[in-house]
Parts: sequence; C-alpha cells; structure tokens
Amino acid sequence: MQSVSVITLGVTDLARSRHFYGEGFGWSPVFENHEIIFYQLNGIVLGTFLNAALDEDMQRRGSEGNAAFALAHNVADREAVAPLIERLADAGGTLLRAADAPPHGGLRGYVADPDGHAWEIAWNPGFTMDGEGNVLFGT
Amino acid sequence: MQSVSVITLGVTDLARSRHFYGEGFGWSPVFENHEIIFYQLNGIVLGTFLNAALDEDMQRRGSEGNAAFALAHNVADREAVAPLIERLADAGGTLLRAADAPPHGGLRGYVADPDGHAWEIAWNPGFTMDGEGNVLFGT
Repeated sequence: MQSVSVITLGVTDLARSRHFYGEGFGWSPVFENHEIIFYQLNGIVLGTFLNAALDEDMQRRGSEGNAAFALAHNVADREAVAPLIERLADAGGTLLRAADAPPHGGLRGYVADPDGHAWEIAWNPGFTMDGEGNVLFGT
Repeated sequence: MQSVSVITLGVTDLARSRHFYGEGFGWSPVFENHEIIFYQLNGIVLGTFLNAALDEDMQRRGSEGNAAFALAHNVADREAVAPLIERLADAGGTLLRAADAPPHGGLRGYVADPDGHAWEIAWNPGFTMDGEGNVLFGT
C-alpha cells in the first residue's frame, strides 16, 4: 500500500510549538501530554514530540533541529512489520531499531532510507486505518 | 483546514532513492524527471527531490541529509497563500521565502516552524484537492 500514516516532528518546547500550530495554522490537538501533541490531519496524524523522546524512540542520536522528524508507514497486521523492515534494509535502507513493542502497545521498528530519512514501520492497534491507508487517531 | 498535502524528502541520488522506495516499499512513481520523483500516497503526495534543487526551492542552505525535507500545506485559492504565511510568521515561524510563482505555476512560499521544520504554503492548480485537504497529483 502506498501510504504514510504519521509525520512526527521533533520539538524543543511543546508550548512554543503548540502556539505556532494553534495560532498559525489554527489547528487543534486531538491528544496531548507532557511530551507529545497529536493533530488529526487529512487521513494522517501529525505528532510534535520532544526531541529527546523522539531520539529515544528512533534509537538515533543527534537528530535535533531540522533533522528531528520521522515518517510512519502503518501496516494492518503485527506479522507484516518485521518482513517489511527486512525488505527495506535489503533495498538500501539502514536499520535503526529492530521491531519491538512500544509502551503504548503494538509493534514497531525504524529504518532510515538511503538519505537518512527515518521511517517507522508500525502495527498500531490504537489507530484506525482504512483500506486506502488513511489513519485516524483512536479506535 | 487541518491538512498536509506534500512531503518532500531531499535526496542525493535519485536512482538510489528510487530503488529503496520501489524495491523496499514496492511503490511506483506517478511522475519522474531528472530532479524529482513523485509518489501518490493516501491523499497526499510524496516527493523525492535532489538536495540542491530543494534547497533552491526553499531558499535555505545546508539542509542536506536528514534535514532535507519539507512539508506542504496546500490552500484552495491564490489569495490564501500570503495571509497564511504572515499568520505563521506572527505565530513564531521564520519566513524562508515570501510567496512567489514557481516554474510549474501557482503560488508558494516557505515558513519554518519554531523548530526549523519547513512548511511550504502553496496554491497549486496542478494538484486536485478535495474538501478534506486530500490531494491528488494531477488535475
């Protein structure tokens, strides 16, 4: 499926970022806590995530500033995560994090494309995904 | 409208990148030339664009590697581009490129968010956009 599910931007100050997206674009969060804010966009979810937490999640260091972002491609089944990560690595990608379970459940790993852009490959039962790959925050 | 329209990743070698997305994800381009390849995803378009060309388009230097990417938020009318850029700058963004016409037509400018993530604000008559902000490459 040709789809992107989540765009995650690393940020240094959640309140400053929230002001920008809230007052600039006029967007309202669908979820927020002390380290991440999610916005429901058109069939995808935008996350703004504290840099240190994003680095920890991707298991990559020094990706602050412009570089601190991640794309996610969600799959429908837990069993689809590891084979896709393997195929991406075989196609010239660099494994950042082998598939394991995040605290919020599901399964995910990270692969960087040949230019260093991080892709999270995830099975996330907390998101609803339709047949075209559009995702909705929540179930 | 809470929407993202285009994700553009800066790349150093188009063929290498094409191999990764083609053989890794199994995706087929909807358009390609000597400097950019577009993939039609779920309501958004992914572009892989040579780093130098992306830097030139954003009017920002040194955004190679992980950092070389841009998000786009398309609007329905030419008249909506400049006011949104102004609002984003007022909300803590940094103007990278004031709105002007790109070679392919339309109107666009760039604003970096407080963490340096580049957003292109564009009216692009070459893309079809529905009422939810989903975009399709072509008209």
